[in-house]
Amino acid sequence: MELYQVRVEMVEGCNVILGMAHFIKTVEDLYEALVTSVPDLQFGLAFCEASGPCLVRSEGTDEALKTAAEHAALALSCGHCFIIYLRNAYPINVLGRIRDVPEVCTVYAATANPLEVIVVETEQGRGMLGVVDGYKSAGLETSTEVEARKAFLRRVKYKL
Amino acid sequence: MELYQVRVEMVEGCNVILGMAHFIKTVEDLYEALVTSVPDLQFGLAFCEASGPCLVRSEGTDEALKTAAEHAALALSCGHCFIIYLRNAYPINVLGRIRDVPEVCTVYAATANPLEVIVVETEQGRGMLGVVDGYKSAGLETSTEVEARKAFLRRVKYKL
Amino acid sequence: MELYQVRVEMVEGCNVILGMAHFIKTVEDLYEALVTSVPDLQFGLAFCEASGPCLVRSEGTDEALKTAAEHAALALSCGHCFIIYLRNAYPINVLGRIRDVPEVCTVYAATANPLEVIVVETEQGRGMLGVVDGYKSAGLETSTEVEARKAFLRRVKYKL
Amino acid sequence: MELYQVRVEMVEGCNVILGMAHFIKTVEDLYEALVTSVPDLQFGLAFCEASGPCLVRSEGTDEALKTAAEHAALALSCGHCFIIYLRNAYPINVLGRIRDVPEVCTVYAATANPLEVIVVETEQGRGMLGVVDGYKSAGLETSTEVEARKAFLRRVKYKL
Amino acid sequence: MELYQVRVEMVEGCNVILGMAHFIKTVEDLYEALVTSVPDLQFGLAFCEASGPCLVRSEGTDEALKTAAEHAALALSCGHCFIIYLRNAYPINVLGRIRDVPEVCTVYAATANPLEVIVVETEQGRGMLGVVDGYKSAGLETSTEVEARKAFLRRVKYKL
Amino acid sequence: MELYQVRVEMVEGCNVILGMAHFIKTVEDLYEALVTSVPDLQFGLAFCEASGPCLVRSEGTDEALKTAAEHAALALSCGHCFIIYLRNAYPINVLGRIRDVPEVCTVYAATANPLEVIVVETEQGRGMLGVVDGYKSAGLETSTEVEARKAFLRRVKYKL
Repeated sequence: MELYQVRVEMVEGCNVILGMAHFIKTVEDLYEALVTSVPDLQFGLAFCEASGPCLVRSEGTDEALKTAAEHAALALSCGHCFIIYLRNAYPINVLGRIRDVPEVCTVYAATANPLEVIVVETEQGRGMLGVVDGYKSAGLETSTEVEARKAFLRRVKYKL
Repeated sequence: MELYQVRVEMVEGCNVILGMAHFIKTVEDLYEALVTSVPDLQFGLAFCEASGPCLVRSEGTDEALKTAAEHAALALSCGHCFIIYLRNAYPINVLGRIRDVPEVCTVYAATANPLEVIVVETEQGRGMLGVVDGYKSAGLETSTEVEARKAFLRRVKYKL
Repeated sequence: MELYQVRVEMVEGCNVILGMAHFIKTVEDLYEALVTSVPDLQFGLAFCEASGPCLVRSEGTDEALKTAAEHAALALSCGHCFIIYLRNAYPINVLGRIRDVPEVCTVYAATANPLEVIVVETEQGRGMLGVVDGYKSAGLETSTEVEARKAFLRRVKYKL
Repeated sequence: MELYQVRVEMVEGCNVILGMAHFIKTVEDLYEALVTSVPDLQFGLAFCEASGPCLVRSEGTDEALKTAAEHAALALSCGHCFIIYLRNAYPINVLGRIRDVPEVCTVYAATANPLEVIVVETEQGRGMLGVVDGYKSAGLETSTEVEARKAFLRRVKYKL
Repeated sequence: MELYQVRVEMVEGCNVILGMAHFIKTVEDLYEALVTSVPDLQFGLAFCEASGPCLVRSEGTDEALKTAAEHAALALSCGHCFIIYLRNAYPINVLGRIRDVPEVCTVYAATANPLEVIVVETEQGRGMLGVVDGYKSAGLETSTEVEARKAFLRRVKYKL
Repeated sequence: MELYQVRVEMVEGCNVILGMAHFIKTVEDLYEALVTSVPDLQFGLAFCEASGPCLVRSEGTDEALKTAAEHAALALSCGHCFIIYLRNAYPINVLGRIRDVPEVCTVYAATANPLEVIVVETEQGRGMLGVVDGYKSAGLETSTEVEARKAFLRRVKYKL
């Protein structure tokens, strides 16, 4: 087997969600889960069919993001993986609903950071082993940084 | 550490669900989640206990599938992993309930495709790094293939 | 890329939950999910911020467990990973609620066993590929061991 | 306001699920939730649209059950209520998925018993106040009856 | 006991969600569930505390909607009920997350229709018996109306 | 039909959860959901079987609470209703898991307040129409009371 680092091309101002599912119906179910999560959501998604014609299947409400998802999925080429690009919303708005889609096994990452996927290739096919999401840790937060963190979440009104 | 490719032996006409849990109660809880998901479901499941006697624990409604699950779990020998073989139902029928079992951490794959698990072995024990589920992607779907995909889901009545 | 084995330092009498999330709000949301799961729960948790200052962010109700979580997270230094140490409760009591936190992607392990994490490091950062949770399997349970397993779960009153 | 007892006509060998939702999309979403819960499920469902043309909307895989659901919904005529008739499966197989449909507010009953709905009618419209599901209690179970209950659940293999 | 019809005053362009919870923390938890569901959501919510000072507790991101919620809750005065007014989103976007708030018991209605609540008053206090959501049914949909329904859901892109 | 006010006898220091389910398996499933929610939880629960012998079925870890639940269920005698008494935990600790039990339709109340249930009796049987949970509202909170509410939740450490 060979291990590769596959970079997910990020799109300016977008977040990406990367996961594992099964069955071609995933494409329509992820579409519906997303389109009914946030009004007028701009997104594109793609899924790697893993048998028969083994095509990258895609849907979305934004052509550029759908194309980005198709290219990212093809770069991965890992059976049953899916990738979503979101523009005017955040993973926190949609992640619960993504996890509840009947075909979804798991989610590997939800991020706007630079993202690398560690991919294994065998004679049979390809699979995801894990992700490098952003950068390695630089140290522990101090009490000043704790206060700043809490203040930030309250300034954006996410916390009272 | 050493990395291995472990092939999951598929059973004709069956789907497999592979995941991670904790605690010996997983075996009974997965059994109950499955047996109450679909009437007369035929399945077998096994779980790798990861402390004490470190036995492969198993349950099911079908002896052959239970045996298949035991052998697959023993081939993996990864602490706290579980594997399920389903005959007369599909992952889409049961995956939501599996994910909701209190002990389940995550699901790695749900598939009827050839399945390889990338296993790491250290001095301490063994763990799953990821899966190769089916085959690598062959390209993007064209508009004709999009139509065929949608038509298929409506022909099997999964979509209106 | 380099692969490492990172040992999670276990604390006597504690369980650990290891997972992947996104966004700094994870720290407060995991805190609230835990503190309202079990009365007077003793726990500490930490999360690896993956952009900006890349700090290990932490909360908890027990200072020693919070410190343990900080040190374990720093040893991992994998972007967007989180780790929880629980004292007077078990993963089965809280895992469902952890999985439902809006920012959580997945859970890799929930265990009181010795735990190793297989970590990849690239030029960009670090990520988790998988875990070795406890020990490898020693064989299949016999009918006597099945009876003992069932009896145990009923003796602790988890099953009727 | 006036209160009425509306009897739900039961169909031999069927179970009924009665609930409250919102929005016309409920009809397609309940259809999909059901059709992907149990292979080859026979069911019919109807929903009372509560604005505009105020029609009873319906879908299903079995014409007779769809007709039964339409008639039951029309007899109720309560804005945003829905009713489902299931033939070859039980509420326990599908109730979780019904509750998770994005438009569903609540479920009032899931039963094969005789079922009456207490309906209120005002000048504006009609609503459900509650249900009489089966018969009133006849007393407490004795230890013999506890044993019989447990034995029954294990005989049908729902419990180990 | 006395039964009353209490009209919920609708706000132009808004939807209302009415439910039952417990405990004063409901107010903050509903706030957080809503504010993280849809970016820049405009909403107000109120909850009827049912012991001690028995105050109507409220939060929100829009003062007018918060005031509307307070007045509606006070008109109901039913212990542990809550009401939410949403402006730039729909119940389908948030209902799942509302149902998952740890204190929420059930949801009675989610609607933009005229809404009446049937309230019971006893010597002790007040409670909700049910709702009249919109208007009573006018008949069954014909095949033309089925087509129009399906076409509408696809025109707004909720279905493919 | 006749409407009655049925008082639920509260037990000092306990909370009650009242809901609707279906099928005799509810008793064991509620037991398991509770016993695995909080370590050493003291509780009793009862369920009104609605066909056949129509017995009140019960389980629990505390005899006095089990007896209290049996008496409360018998006083209600409403087909398929259930009632739970909790001593050393709060509804917020267990309500999510109760709602996820496969047989549960809905929850009417979760409270330590005085509780009345409005019960309807017809020739066929009895049903719950709603609850009076605690007392009616006394007015809107002022800004001082808002501060006190927030301070309380942070003093008990439920919020940061």
